[in-house]
Amino acid sequence: MQHMKWWGWGDESTTFDHHDKPALAPFVLDKVGINLDSGSSKVIAFDELEIEPSRLTDELRTALIEAVGDDWVLDSPMERVVHTYGKSLRDLVRIRRGDLGRLPDVVVYPPDEDATVAVLEAALAADAVVIPFGGGTNISGSLEAPRGEQRCVISLDMARLDQVIDIDVTSRTARIQAGALGPELERQLNARGWTIGHFPDSFNHSTLGGWIATRSSGMQSDKYGDIADLTRAVRVVTPRGVLATRNVPSTSTGPSVREMILGSEGRLGVITEATVHVHRVPENRTILGYLFPDWSRALRAMQAIAASDAAPSVTRVSDAGETQFSFATKKGGGLADKVQSLLLKQFLTRVKHFNLDDMCLSFIGYEGAPDHAARQRKLVGAIVKAHGGICVGSGPGELYDQKKFDTPYIRDFLLDRGGLADVSETSAPWAELEALYDGTMAAANKAFAELGVKGWIMCHLSHSYHSGACLYFTFAFSETPGEDGLAQYDVVKRAIQTAFMDHGATLSHHHAVGVEHSAWLAEDISPAGVEMIRALFDGVDPGNNLNPGKIIPGD
Amino acid sequence: MQHMKWWGWGDESTTFDHHDKPALAPFVLDKVGINLDSGSSKVIAFDELEIEPSRLTDELRTALIEAVGDDWVLDSPMERVVHTYGKSLRDLVRIRRGDLGRLPDVVVYPPDEDATVAVLEAALAADAVVIPFGGGTNISGSLEAPRGEQRCVISLDMARLDQVIDIDVTSRTARIQAGALGPELERQLNARGWTIGHFPDSFNHSTLGGWIATRSSGMQSDKYGDIADLTRAVRVVTPRGVLATRNVPSTSTGPSVREMILGSEGRLGVITEATVHVHRVPENRTILGYLFPDWSRALRAMQAIAASDAAPSVTRVSDAGETQFSFATKKGGGLADKVQSLLLKQFLTRVKHFNLDDMCLSFIGYEGAPDHAARQRKLVGAIVKAHGGICVGSGPGELYDQKKFDTPYIRDFLLDRGGLADVSETSAPWAELEALYDGTMAAANKAFAELGVKGWIMCHLSHSYHSGACLYFTFAFSETPGEDGLAQYDVVKRAIQTAFMDHGATLSHHHAVGVEHSAWLAEDISPAGVEMIRALFDGVDPGNNLNPGKIIPGD
Repeated sequence: MQHMKWWGWGDESTTFDHHDKPALAPFVLDKVGINLDSGSSKVIAFDELEIEPSRLTDELRTALIEAVGDDWVLDSPMERVVHTYGKSLRDLVRIRRGDLGRLPDVVVYPPDEDATVAVLEAALAADAVVIPFGGGTNISGSLEAPRGEQRCVISLDMARLDQVIDIDVTSRTARIQAGALGPELERQLNARGWTIGHFPDSFNHSTLGGWIATRSSGMQSDKYGDIADLTRAVRVVTPRGVLATRNVPSTSTGPSVREMILGSEGRLGVITEATVHVHRVPENRTILGYLFPDWSRALRAMQAIAASDAAPSVTRVSDAGETQFSFATKKGGGLADKVQSLLLKQFLTRVKHFNLDDMCLSFIGYEGAPDHAARQRKLVGAIVKAHGGICVGSGPGELYDQKKFDTPYIRDFLLDRGGLADVSETSAPWAELEALYDGTMAAANKAFAELGVKGWIMCHLSHSYHSGACLYFTFAFSETPGEDGLAQYDVVKRAIQTAFMDHGATLSHHHAVGVEHSAWLAEDISPAGVEMIRALFDGVDPGNNLNPGKIIPGD
Repeated sequence: MQHMKWWGWGDESTTFDHHDKPALAPFVLDKVGINLDSGSSKVIAFDELEIEPSRLTDELRTALIEAVGDDWVLDSPMERVVHTYGKSLRDLVRIRRGDLGRLPDVVVYPPDEDATVAVLEAALAADAVVIPFGGGTNISGSLEAPRGEQRCVISLDMARLDQVIDIDVTSRTARIQAGALGPELERQLNARGWTIGHFPDSFNHSTLGGWIATRSSGMQSDKYGDIADLTRAVRVVTPRGVLATRNVPSTSTGPSVREMILGSEGRLGVITEATVHVHRVPENRTILGYLFPDWSRALRAMQAIAASDAAPSVTRVSDAGETQFSFATKKGGGLADKVQSLLLKQFLTRVKHFNLDDMCLSFIGYEGAPDHAARQRKLVGAIVKAHGGICVGSGPGELYDQKKFDTPYIRDFLLDRGGLADVSETSAPWAELEALYDGTMAAANKAFAELGVKGWIMCHLSHSYHSGACLYFTFAFSETPGEDGLAQYDVVKRAIQTAFMDHGATLSHHHAVGVEHSAWLAEDISPAGVEMIRALFDGVDPGNNLNPGKIIPGD
């Protein structure tokens, strides 16, 4: 099985490089105080890692081998290390230092649902812990065992369940195994003319089961819906048997057990399969770029688009800082490119009276039949104009497509240069977005100042809904030599999350709770809400064997 | 407080009358064997009812009076009788016979959330049962106390919490108290130019809290969403404190406690308030009628509309039987009307080669700006044509509007004439709908034959989704004199629900589980799903004080 780098994001063969982006190094030096041309790998050598011996007993090993076969019960150091964490900033920092946390004792790869049942039964009989593992991209700490866990820890890797089982072309649904990675399930669907339309940033390395277990959202969710909307039925191996809900479009069968699985992060069982909406691969897909004079007007335009008859597939707008970052990551163009850019600048400043420091870049996507897409574009165009914006064509749209899955590689690159970068995202009602933005920016900048670090925070709006939208913040700072970078990170992260809470927003729009966000759960859903989730978890898993400590901290 | 008739549906002042619908009596005589011109009220006189003494203790009465005030703790016979049941066919039959079931011992009307908390605390301290009551329209047995309940039973009527608290015009949400009836909340919203867009058949007599507690769906849910989609936040008085979720458009805070409240039928607490989507009252609203040559082509057209770029506000089509019923309930027109009708018939049979016995009537609704609505109409028109259908203008659409909230009155009228009529609805994927329909019709007709009764079943499709739709069956038969009509009803109802299960459909699309459908829950969501719901209920309400026996039968 192919895994991501044990120490960082993505494929071994891919690393971030800034040399084709001439404006980036000056930008980062200016904003975060980091010299991109310095630095070198700060990752501990693999053979220097201290690997705790596995606690797997012979008896449990025998039962697991019986369940999944000899070749698929693995406890080599590399298998255990790549399954110990997800890919949060905290995970990356710890693994680089050789802090492996509570390594899983064994990694098991079931071939199918029956084997998954056998693994769970064996684990429960041995009072072992089971942590389901999809692509390993989680950034909320949902994949690590509690430090003090005394029981055997099994990482249950779903990679072998990667098939599109069936497509119902009339009902436009597909049954897909939970371990299928984004590219693999899209390949199988595309081969028959279909798409799931779910493209989270983690797409290349995350799985259907992981998306469901964390309530994922994708770049085109405005059109296709969040994973919660497009998941019609689930199959889940639970301690109470196999949960199998029916593929029905809507139902009133009491509190929905399908919905309880959404966001359950392995606490209720192991997702083996889901029936999801699929769509015909669209005839046309266009992403257009727009520029707004400032963030406030850009936000109001997004709200107006959501309230209009237009229903674009993507609505996204960056604040001024992220707009500057986007232009700084542009690959170096030729002379024509530079002339065009100069003319645009002149047009914006002299004709449109833009202040280039305040300007906000937006991407809006259109799909469907040509006349349908044309009508959407026209409706959006009028709203953009009414808010002082202009369309700048499909050039920036290509930038959007080119960048979309590359961003996480930057974190490893920065870590080698003393830079800590991470993301925090949330959602709130339209009426609260501007105050939420202002409050979060101020809180982060205050934290940077208190720490005495050079820091930077930027934001984009994505995922528009009827009543509000997601705000997605990216922040970075240069750690103080001699200080604990993670302790500094905690100060900034806490400031941002507290600002979310103070402004009526949620702890995370689509990155799950894990252990990273559980401190804010009671404030978000009220203590009574926490008690409801606890009742559910305790009742379904009284032995606390399923991914303990996630969402609701252990006692 | 104004309540519905203690013995039947709706306002005291309104009764069904067939004399302005000349075609109805012959139709009913032909199909169900009932003479509409015979019959008379078969309802027991109120003063002949045997009212069990209330089990309310002085101590609990004192606590309840402290919570809500002396005027709002009521145990008169009429108060207790109107709160003992909902309005299912079973409820109507029983109450007409004087079978009152386990009457609530007291009815309490809290003025606000704090008082609701005080009532629940007093009830739990006294180990009493609490059954939340909205408008009392439930037809799944969700409102009755278990027959053998030995504890004091409190009916908690939410009627005094009927205010639209606040409208957020930017985020397009409104905070509304749970006890507000449909017309009252629409009145308050409309006064400021807004609508909730939720219009279930029960609209005139049901409440926001009831809609949420049963996962309701409305006539225009294609556009506005089911109640599950449009409910953004809830406040619920639970035994673990007041659950208060945030008004956010989407979130990944673990298994959603907001969603757990949807369909919870009072088992988790008492809903006091919700924040819901609202929309501007549309500039234009048009319902157009269409005719299809047969059911099979009509179903395929609805599927094609759902898969198209059109997004009408209503998609509904009746089978041939319900089409004939609709025409039979048409109010008698003048000569012009008759000539027009004759010409249409000739056109359909001679030009379009329709067989009038197979013809299916459809209503499709359009809202929004005129050019938007026009475009939707054009897209739909092309699909209808491709499936052999024709548009017959807005005349039948007026019929739709006129009928929409009147249907339940017919049941009482038929009961006085020996006719038992009821509804069963479900949802399934598009690919399964025709087999589901055929199987359900066959099962009901087989049940009628086995019982030796003259019976009738008809159906419409409503609520189109990406992957499927709701099929809504209405059935009636004349009970055999000397037989127990309810026992005969059980045979038919069981045959229909079993057909739903056999064809991959759900036990109910929007009428909830209650006690009427709980026998099919394990088949619908699998035994593991039932155990998950049980874990949730037992953990939140370990004393089983909250509406016991609903959704999951008691031990």
